[in-house]
Parts: sequence; C-alpha cells; structure tokens
Amino acid sequence: MDLSSRLLKEGVEALSGLPSIGRRTALRLALHLLKQPTAQTHQLCDALKKMVDCLHFCEKCHNISDGKICDICNNPKRDQQVVCVVEDIRDVMAIEATGQYQGGYHVLGGRIAPVEGISPNDLNIDSLIHKVTEEQIKEVILALSATVEGDTTNFYIYKRLKHLDVKVSAIAKGIAVGYELQYTDELTLGRSIIQRVDFESYLGL
Amino acid sequence: MDLSSRLLKEGVEALSGLPSIGRRTALRLALHLLKQPTAQTHQLCDALKKMVDCLHFCEKCHNISDGKICDICNNPKRDQQVVCVVEDIRDVMAIEATGQYQGGYHVLGGRIAPVEGISPNDLNIDSLIHKVTEEQIKEVILALSATVEGDTTNFYIYKRLKHLDVKVSAIAKGIAVGYELQYTDELTLGRSIIQRVDFESYLGL
Repeated sequence: MDLSSRLLKEGVEALSGLPSIGRRTALRLALHLLKQPTAQTHQLCDALKKMVDCLHFCEKCHNISDGKICDICNNPKRDQQVVCVVEDIRDVMAIEATGQYQGGYHVLGGRIAPVEGISPNDLNIDSLIHKVTEEQIKEVILALSATVEGDTTNFYIYKRLKHLDVKVSAIAKGIAVGYELQYTDELTLGRSIIQRVDFESYLGL
Repeated sequence: MDLSSRLLKEGVEALSGLPSIGRRTALRLALHLLKQPTAQTHQLCDALKKMVDCLHFCEKCHNISDGKICDICNNPKRDQQVVCVVEDIRDVMAIEATGQYQGGYHVLGGRIAPVEGISPNDLNIDSLIHKVTEEQIKEVILALSATVEGDTTNFYIYKRLKHLDVKVSAIAKGIAVGYELQYTDELTLGRSIIQRVDFESYLGL
C-alpha cells in the first residue's frame, strides 16, 4: 500500500505497532482520526500520555493503581491475610466482577513459559514469598489459567511455599455453570468428578 | 468490568471511541501501552497529533496531502485531463497500487446514501463539476463501489456531467482474475457476458 503522505505513513506505522492492529486496521483508524475534529485526537493522546506517565503498579500486589498502594490493598474491610495469585491485571478485574472474593491479590505479571523465554525470575514470585513470610498470610489461592504453563507456575509456587506456615489452595476446575454435561470435554469432566464437593457446601450451606 | 484506576479508565474510554475497538480490545491496548516503555507511547501520540494537525486535503482532488496540492496533482507526467472519481482515499491507494493508471483523481468523500443521511451536498461533487467545466477534462472515469449506493452516485454524477463536453466511463465489472466461473455470482457473471470485450483488447493488443 503506497501512502502518498509522509505524515499519514508515520501515523499508520505508529498505530500498527499496537498488538493485533495490522496495517489495514491502522490505516482505517488513522483515516477516522483525520475525519473527526482534531480536538478529539488531542484528547485521546493526552489521556494515553497521562495514563502511561502517572499510573503506578501497587507496591504490595503489583495491581495497577493511581497511587502507590492500590484501593484493594488499602481497603481495611478486605481480608489481607488471604492472597489470590493471578497472572494478569485483567484476572483481578474478572475476579472482582464476580463480587465473590473479599481478600487481597498478588499479580505475577505472566506465567512460567520457557518456550517464550519467561522464567520464574521474570515474574513477581519473590515478592509473593516475601509477603507470605513477613506478613501473617493465612492462605494463598492459586488462580492461574488451566493450561500447562499455568499448572507449571502453580507447581513452582507451591514448591516454594510448602515449607512455610500457609495454606495453599487452587481455584476449582469443573463444568461451567449453565453447560450441559455431554458437551464438556473429558479432562474437565473427569476432574470435576474426582474433585467432587460435599452437596451441602455445593448449596452454599 | 470494574477498572480500579481512574487513569486507566480514562485511557480505555478514549481508546474505545475508535471504530471497531470495543472495551475489551481497548483494555488490552491500554495494558500493552503500560507494559512498553513510556517513550514509545509518547512517540505514538506525537505521530498522531502531528498527523491530524499538519495533514491537508489536496485542494484540487481532495486526496490527503502533506502540502496544499497532492503529489499526484502536482505530477506533470500524469495526464491531468483524465479524472478518476473514487469514494475514498483508500480507493486512490488501491488504484495506485495497481500501477495501471496514470491520470488524476477526484475523491468524493463517500457516496450518496439517503438512509445514512448522506446527500449529494455532503460530497465533493460540485467541485468535480467545476473542475470539468473550468479545466479541459477529456474523460471522467467513475470508479465507485459496485453497490446500490455506488450506482446511485454514479448515475447522479452522470446526469450532472452528460450535458458537458466530457466522456464519462465506468470501471469494468466482471469475474475476478484467478476466479473460477462456477463460483462467480449470477449478477457479476451476467454482467461480464453482456459487457464482453473484443479479444484483442482483452489481450492488451
């Protein structure tokens, strides 16, 4: 694609550096920006600049935060002795959206994936161990993805925690709510039978 | 989705104002920007701001241009007496990419679409008529989309041009190069039979 304008070319190249935005989409976005009032593009750019300049990562749990410590870590109503370990900030949002969890978090920033060159040292694991030893953490809930990498990371963290005086649990795997049994894959279904729960706790009694 | 950070929320909202970017994609983009060095985000924003602030639309053909008149209109090697009418800047790029056209362009900025509230007055049609009457234009090539709106616009322009001393042509419609006959839709195939061309001109002789 020959972009006759140098300025447009630079704009399209900058946009296509974003994930999952190819040159065609970048061009469409650039032409949209050119059509709308310039003030709107300035507003977009200012919001993005302010975001990357002023946003912090919480010193305690590595969640994003407007201040040094995030609202969740700062909340005295939440049980800070329970730590839910997640891969990503989006996982925090997903769990928060359920409204079912009232403890704290610890964001790893990824999972161990040797193929992609991600080793335990690239993740916020040391700070988790430090948190467990220094603060009176009662329980660590592992809430990573149900993938090989997620399981590897789960196991690595478990090995580093098992000598410490802390309960380690993992989120339950099983059939999804609203799903029919016959459409559930064998591994998940097998796991949901082995890890069956007492019916009274199932009912929430 | 509850975004605990106000700054992230503002960034995500600004990004999700872009076409075909929903809140999920906007969040993914925002988190990507937060992960990469801040200088890169500044570079992106500066490129976009510069683009919307400094880019012009060519006074002659309404194509985008770094200067007042675009490179195509300024090129003395191109036949400025032939004008190819297109809907959009992207169509100029598409035709330029073929390397088969050596005339000038006229970008309408859309097509007549009463349903969307786009009337002839919203398009650069008056300036096309003006160009044809004032400059010695020999031929106007209508290269709009093969849709109802495209055909409506074609016909409207044709009606305004037919009393003037100018040849009006339209790009050929027919089966795509490399396509098999049996998979071509009936309308296109029918049209390609009615508008068959002399085999020698087909061969480019």
